[in-house]
Amino acid sequence: MDAKNLGFDTINLGHGSGGTMTRDLLDKIIFKTFDNPYLNQKHDGSIVKFNSKIAISTDSFVISPIFFKGGNIGELAVNGTVNDVAMCGAIPKYLSLAFIVEEGLKIDEFIKIVNSIKSAADKSGVQIITGDTKVVERGKGDKIFINTTGFGEVHPKANISTNNIKAGDKIIVNGLVAQHGMAIMSQREGLEFESTIESDTTNVNFLVNDLLDEFGNEIHLFRDPTRGGLASVLSEISQDINKGITIYEDKIPLEKQVAAACEILGLDPLYVANEGLFISIVDAKVADDVVELMRKDTKGKNTACIGEITNEHPNKVVMHSIIGGKRIVSPLIGEQLPRIC
Amino acid sequence: MDAKNLGFDTINLGHGSGGTMTRDLLDKIIFKTFDNPYLNQKHDGSIVKFNSKIAISTDSFVISPIFFKGGNIGELAVNGTVNDVAMCGAIPKYLSLAFIVEEGLKIDEFIKIVNSIKSAADKSGVQIITGDTKVVERGKGDKIFINTTGFGEVHPKANISTNNIKAGDKIIVNGLVAQHGMAIMSQREGLEFESTIESDTTNVNFLVNDLLDEFGNEIHLFRDPTRGGLASVLSEISQDINKGITIYEDKIPLEKQVAAACEILGLDPLYVANEGLFISIVDAKVADDVVELMRKDTKGKNTACIGEITNEHPNKVVMHSIIGGKRIVSPLIGEQLPRIC
Repeated sequence: MDAKNLGFDTINLGHGSGGTMTRDLLDKIIFKTFDNPYLNQKHDGSIVKFNSKIAISTDSFVISPIFFKGGNIGELAVNGTVNDVAMCGAIPKYLSLAFIVEEGLKIDEFIKIVNSIKSAADKSGVQIITGDTKVVERGKGDKIFINTTGFGEVHPKANISTNNIKAGDKIIVNGLVAQHGMAIMSQREGLEFESTIESDTTNVNFLVNDLLDEFGNEIHLFRDPTRGGLASVLSEISQDINKGITIYEDKIPLEKQVAAACEILGLDPLYVANEGLFISIVDAKVADDVVELMRKDTKGKNTACIGEITNEHPNKVVMHSIIGGKRIVSPLIGEQLPRIC
Repeated sequence: MDAKNLGFDTINLGHGSGGTMTRDLLDKIIFKTFDNPYLNQKHDGSIVKFNSKIAISTDSFVISPIFFKGGNIGELAVNGTVNDVAMCGAIPKYLSLAFIVEEGLKIDEFIKIVNSIKSAADKSGVQIITGDTKVVERGKGDKIFINTTGFGEVHPKANISTNNIKAGDKIIVNGLVAQHGMAIMSQREGLEFESTIESDTTNVNFLVNDLLDEFGNEIHLFRDPTRGGLASVLSEISQDINKGITIYEDKIPLEKQVAAACEILGLDPLYVANEGLFISIVDAKVADDVVELMRKDTKGKNTACIGEITNEHPNKVVMHSIIGGKRIVSPLIGEQLPRIC
C-alpha cells in the first residue's frame, strides 16, 4: 500500500463525513490493507464466534511524537492491546480499530501507520474486524489518535487472578525496564547516546501462551507495567492483595544507556513506561523453570526474577537497593511523561 | 455522583499518568458510577462469556458541542454503539469505554457526561466492562472524545445480510429524519425556532429485538443512517446489492421545523445525520405488520414505509418528489456537517 495515485495528499474533514470520501479512504487504504471476510462485510459491525470465555480490553493511543525510535503509534496501538488481552490469560484473536485524525495529516504518514498496524496485527496473529474513522478540525486534535479494542479466547489452563497470589510467589519480568519511556523522552529532549535507545514495543502474546501451556495455574498473575512503570503496577498489586512486595534493585534488568538517560533527566526508571515488558507472578516452585523457558524466547532473553510476595509490610513495595539500604517504592503520583502511549 | 469533595476541579495531565491520580479519578468517579463485577476487577481487561455468535462494533465520538439540545456526547457514545450492535441483529450486552480528555476539562462537565453514560447504559441494558482514560495537553484535543466498543449476542432468529435483499422488499424507517444533525446545526448557527429542535439520540435495541422476535428472517437488513444521512446509506446499500432503490419524498417523516431549518441553511434533510433512526429492509409480505408493530413502540411512533427495492435502475436510488418529478439521490460526497457524532 502506498500513497501514489490515491487522488488526495492529506486527510481532510470530508474523509470523516460518512459519504463517498469516507468510502474512498476506506476502500483504497483500509479495506485494501486489512482485507479479511469480517471487514469486507463493510457493515457497522462484525460477527465472530468464540469457543470459550472472552477477554476484552480497550486502549486509546495518543503518543507524541507519532513516529519514534523503535516504532510508531500504529504498531503501538496493536501491541498494547494485544498484550493487555494476553495479560488476562487469553489468546488475542481480533481487534477493532478506530482513528481520530486531525485534518491535514499527510496521507503518506497515515499509510505508514496503517501498514504498521497491518504488520503488527499479522505478527500477533490478530485480525482487524471492525473500525471507525473520524476527522477533527486542525488544532482540535494532534495528528492521529488510535483506539483499539481487543478480544481473545481465554487459555484453557489460565487461572489469572490476584486472589491466587500468596506469600513466597516470585515476581518475574521478561526484559529491560524503562526502554519505551526513555526512547520517547530522549527523542523529545534531543538527547544523543552512543547507540539509540529504542522503544520495546512488541507483542508478547505467544510467550504468554507458551507460559500458560507449560505452567497453567502455577501462573498467578500477568500484568504489563506501561504508564506509571514497574513501581506503580507493583504498588497497585500490593494494595490489591494486601500483602507486601520485596524487589531487589540489582536484579532489575536495566540497560546502561537507559540508566544514564534517566540520570540526566532526573527520572527513576521504575516509574518510566514500558511497552513490551510484562510481570509474571508465579508459584515459587516453578519460578526457575519459568525463567528458563522465557530466556529461550527472543522476547524474554533478559528475563529476571526481581523479587517476591511477602507477608511483611503489607500494601507496600520495598526495594533492597544496590548500595545496601531498603526503601519504600510508592506509586507514581502526578504525571512523569505525558502522552507516552 | 457529583463534583463536590473530589479534591480536584478539572482534569489535568496527571489524571492520564497511570499513577495514583489516575487511580483516584477512576475510583472516585468511574468505578463508583459503573460499579459492576467486571469493572471491579480493576484489571486492564475483562472476561465475559457469550452463548452465541457475537456482534462487535466500535465508534469514536468527537461531536462538538459536547452538550447539545437533546443530549450530550456521553449518551450519544452509548446509544450510537448500542444501535450499531443492534443493526447486526444482535442484543447488546457490554461496552468498553475509552476517554481522550483535553487537559482543563471541568470535572463537573466530566461527571455530567459519565452520569449520562451510566443512565444510557442502564436504559439499553448494557454494562461498561473495561475502559481507558488518556489526557492530552490543552490545544491538542477538544474537551473530550469518547470511544465505545460494543458486544452483543446475535439474536437466534436474526439473519441480517445484504445478500437476503430482493426486489420488492420494503424500506421502513422508525421515525423523523434529520433531527440530530439539525439540532446540532441550529445550535451552532444560533437559529431559534418556536420550539427547540432536539437530537433524536436514543437506543433502539429493544425495538430491534422485538422485530427479530416477531419477524425473524423476514427482516433482511437493519442499518442506521448516521453520518451522511439517509441518502448516503441507501446509496451504499443499492451499490452493495446491485439493485435499485425507489423512495417517495412524501412518505419520509420530516418534522416541519426541521424542514424549515434545512431550508434556511441550504441543507437537504436526506444528507443530514440521524442518531435514533434506523432503516429496516423487510420482505414485502410482512411490511404492514412491521409498521404496525413499530408504531406501537415509543421509538417507532412515526414509523413509515418510504420505498422499496427494485430491479430497475441498479446501483441507484431514485426519489419520487412531492411535486411529481423523479431524481437520482447520490451519496454525500464531501463534508456537510463536521463532527456531528
